[in-house]
Amino acid sequence: MKKLINSPEDVVRDALRGMEAAHGDRLRISYDPYMVVRKDAPVQGKVGIISGGGSGHEPMHGGFVGPGMLDAACPGEVFTSPTPDQMLEATKAVNGGAGVLHVVKNYTGDVMNFDMAADMGKGEDIEVETVLTNDDVAVEDSLYTAGRRGVGVTVLVEKICGAAADDGKSLAEVAELGRKVNANGRSMGMALTPCITPGSGEPSFELAEDEVEIGIGIHGEPGRFRESIGPASQIAERLMTPIVEDLPFSSGDKVLAFVNGMGGTPLLELYVVYAEVAKIAQERGLQIERNLVGNFITSLEMQGCSITLVKLDDDMTRYWDAPVNTPALRWGA
Amino acid sequence: MKKLINSPEDVVRDALRGMEAAHGDRLRISYDPYMVVRKDAPVQGKVGIISGGGSGHEPMHGGFVGPGMLDAACPGEVFTSPTPDQMLEATKAVNGGAGVLHVVKNYTGDVMNFDMAADMGKGEDIEVETVLTNDDVAVEDSLYTAGRRGVGVTVLVEKICGAAADDGKSLAEVAELGRKVNANGRSMGMALTPCITPGSGEPSFELAEDEVEIGIGIHGEPGRFRESIGPASQIAERLMTPIVEDLPFSSGDKVLAFVNGMGGTPLLELYVVYAEVAKIAQERGLQIERNLVGNFITSLEMQGCSITLVKLDDDMTRYWDAPVNTPALRWGA
Repeated sequence: MKKLINSPEDVVRDALRGMEAAHGDRLRISYDPYMVVRKDAPVQGKVGIISGGGSGHEPMHGGFVGPGMLDAACPGEVFTSPTPDQMLEATKAVNGGAGVLHVVKNYTGDVMNFDMAADMGKGEDIEVETVLTNDDVAVEDSLYTAGRRGVGVTVLVEKICGAAADDGKSLAEVAELGRKVNANGRSMGMALTPCITPGSGEPSFELAEDEVEIGIGIHGEPGRFRESIGPASQIAERLMTPIVEDLPFSSGDKVLAFVNGMGGTPLLELYVVYAEVAKIAQERGLQIERNLVGNFITSLEMQGCSITLVKLDDDMTRYWDAPVNTPALRWGA
Repeated sequence: MKKLINSPEDVVRDALRGMEAAHGDRLRISYDPYMVVRKDAPVQGKVGIISGGGSGHEPMHGGFVGPGMLDAACPGEVFTSPTPDQMLEATKAVNGGAGVLHVVKNYTGDVMNFDMAADMGKGEDIEVETVLTNDDVAVEDSLYTAGRRGVGVTVLVEKICGAAADDGKSLAEVAELGRKVNANGRSMGMALTPCITPGSGEPSFELAEDEVEIGIGIHGEPGRFRESIGPASQIAERLMTPIVEDLPFSSGDKVLAFVNGMGGTPLLELYVVYAEVAKIAQERGLQIERNLVGNFITSLEMQGCSITLVKLDDDMTRYWDAPVNTPALRWGA
């Protein structure tokens, strides 16, 4: 295992030290428990929004903390859920009196711990609502999940809810919007290579020299099938067909198309995939109104990509366009 | 070789199709010759700025085209210089009457072709100035270079010159500023793994299971030495010491610190490296005034990183902070 780390035990702490050194003017980093918090939190009168999950998916979630998106993120160890205590601390840190939204990806540990944290928050008289993301159409139930996994749509929920909170929406309204984004969103991923967690030192799975896995999870959870690698056009079709047919997306729908890199795939290749996604969308009459191409929800150095489509309405589009100022997503600010 | 491409011959064209599909509202893509051009080019009265080089280093340069940075980029095939004709076309496309700056990384093919393009531009009565970047302290002369290689500082030259051009500076002033950024900047990189170009299908070099190469070039050109991988603190020291001692940077200097990923390294690890860079800078009395962490000048899926330091003055800092609106770097717009 070759990695740019000091030791497997310290990788999350050391990365947070880097976040603090790079973004300490805008973010407050806590080491006990681990938290990335907007420096000006809590913002009085604004709904606070937190998320969290295992590390190894950067920039998600710490890279999405800042005006227009998350108020705080709770990183766990690599591919390990953060704890309820951590989530409670974050909830308290961002509560500006208008309640706190938890954005939770559907993995068993995250769901259980966020549930406990929500109860603990309510016990301290903080209103808490939860948006659970479960957009991955690849499989029902998985290695760490009952039901569908939460993947790419999480990024979009965090952005759109962040803007709605900035716009003065109530906790119930922000939560409802987040659930709508999730309900309107579908994703699927694939891998060319596994990743190696620092703790294990071993690849999360094995793929043959010419093989890809279609429907992979962001922790290397099994997908739908393996096959010999084909052209990008075929891979895009393998992901787009289940996505489009699941919602289903229909001709005339306005969508946001998000091509996400798993961490180890060159941007050059992500744009090749995006070209195929745009072509398939056009053939099916989908109008791509907004797009995002890059590494936003990753799996360490895994090579591969995922595709997310979200059916947009005017509110979502307006909130997507609203200013955001975080380390990983920034515009208009 | 497993890649998200349709065919090795079409990878650059297909990635440009993706750029056009994703950013066609802001960028004009030309396929014959390959160019990425600001949609509103030429901007009358503003110095035009172009750059170019082999593909495989994305987002550089196409991802840096837009208000506040480049007016056009000329992508060559992977790791292959673009042609003089291509550069001439781009020069003409962005000439708004105030002349055109060529930002050229110091590789033999790029230098030769940009020289020819500059002559051809002058033959068409376009004023052309060139800024040559050669910030890589690793080695003098290299596989594709006489003198030092141009690497990370190129990104910063393009941003800062872009802002100066927006500010109404003359061609001579923008060029002088670009040369100053390069003169004030030093970089060095390292690799954990090689990359595979689509055309060759073979790794650009071989490294043992536990080995890293210190001083690597962005095309896999040999560096200074190989050694067993140590902790991130040691790797940061291996890169920072030659950088700091070369300019030399001195206690009290204000600097921009840029930790760049080679393409296949997780962001988590880049922040671990940034923490070490910040620590070393502090020990040496360098004040990091601005920073950049991420994948900006890459080498396909190579794992590794490079560090760039630039000694800042007030103009450079102000121009760094100025609004920029490109696919890969965006703020204040």
